Amino acid sequence: MYPIITISREFGSGGHSIGQAVAKELGIPFYDSVIVEEAAKKSGYSTDTVVEDGEYTTLSQTWFSSNAAYNVNYLSPQDKIFEAQRNVILDLAEKGPCVIVGRCADYILDTANIPALNVFIHANMEYRKAHVLERYGKTNVPIEKRLRKKDKGRKTYYRYYTDREWGQSNYYHISLDASYLGELTCVDIITSAARRKNENK
Amino acid sequence: MYPIITISREFGSGGHSIGQAVAKELGIPFYDSVIVEEAAKKSGYSTDTVVEDGEYTTLSQTWFSSNAAYNVNYLSPQDKIFEAQRNVILDLAEKGPCVIVGRCADYILDTANIPALNVFIHANMEYRKAHVLERYGKTNVPIEKRLRKKDKGRKTYYRYYTDREWGQSNYYHISLDASYLGELTCVDIITSAARRKNENK
Repeated sequence: MYPIITISREFGSGGHSIGQAVAKELGIPFYDSVIVEEAAKKSGYSTDTVVEDGEYTTLSQTWFSSNAAYNVNYLSPQDKIFEAQRNVILDLAEKGPCVIVGRCADYILDTANIPALNVFIHANMEYRKAHVLERYGKTNVPIEKRLRKKDKGRKTYYRYYTDREWGQSNYYHISLDASYLGELTCVDIITSAARRKNENK
Repeated sequence: MYPIITISREFGSGGHSIGQAVAKELGIPFYDSVIVEEAAKKSGYSTDTVVEDGEYTTLSQTWFSSNAAYNVNYLSPQDKIFEAQRNVILDLAEKGPCVIVGRCADYILDTANIPALNVFIHANMEYRKAHVLERYGKTNVPIEKRLRKKDKGRKTYYRYYTDREWGQSNYYHISLDASYLGELTCVDIITSAARRKNENK
């Protein structure tokens, strides 16, 4: 059996399309928008809110010094969405081998003792800029600033819920620089590793 | 032409033998003890001192608060060895494709604008313990303590000379968990990536 594969990725690194290609190549499901939709249903928030608050910390400094932050029983919208996503991911993992992109899936499965092949995809700034401009187009905010904001939001979110350092290689079985290796080589490396796991177990 | 390949590795992760196997597979030189010998000649220190002070920070807290530490022109033995190793690595890199293990080679080549395929090999604690015991045997110091000390020394050394975080995946093109993937798969992934670079250039 192929392992469950989680893909964490820098914004604009192409990790999403790499995940899709890996799933297609292995013939296993690719879960992305279905997690958002199911987590929206479970939490009662809109899919837009789940997309925004399900991977990026948007809590302000004001919030952190508010009364709510000191109340251990209080759950912020972000906490509720995290919990809903967690349940959706655990349900999907029960169905068998699949590719899950983002949303702390590596941590969620690990702490639930569900084995997975954890992958991190990163890329240099030039590559990410080009990718983001191609996919989302220009906005009023300079592209580099948009990338830095996304990075900061994801890192903070990941650290908040996992107590781990995002992108620290020890937490992943394979970390790849898509700008150096190219998307195709990344897909090959991940599928070969998954196939070997399949042969050995 | 194959790229120059640098391999940074956690102590006991098997990165050294992976590097040897990659070099053999590609038919390119593997540099390890030759760096120590040449750096010893250049710096005037013994090979034993170069092995110890060429990858691990052994400077004590007392040293950091000594007068020497405040003198910007003062070079510690460690600084002299780093400089000697740097020159040896740059000389070897000029000769063409090769595999270099450890000694901040990734950073040294990067800052000299010499392109390289940078790899980081890590492994879980169980795997590393077994590896170290097999290779070096037992000592009075418990194995876990020995590993933590080596980790700390290497991390501190790397941070001191490079201003980078050791093991942060963004600094490597490929980071692999040898305990999950196995040595053979690691060798395959690295040689395939080197072969693709060779085909594309």
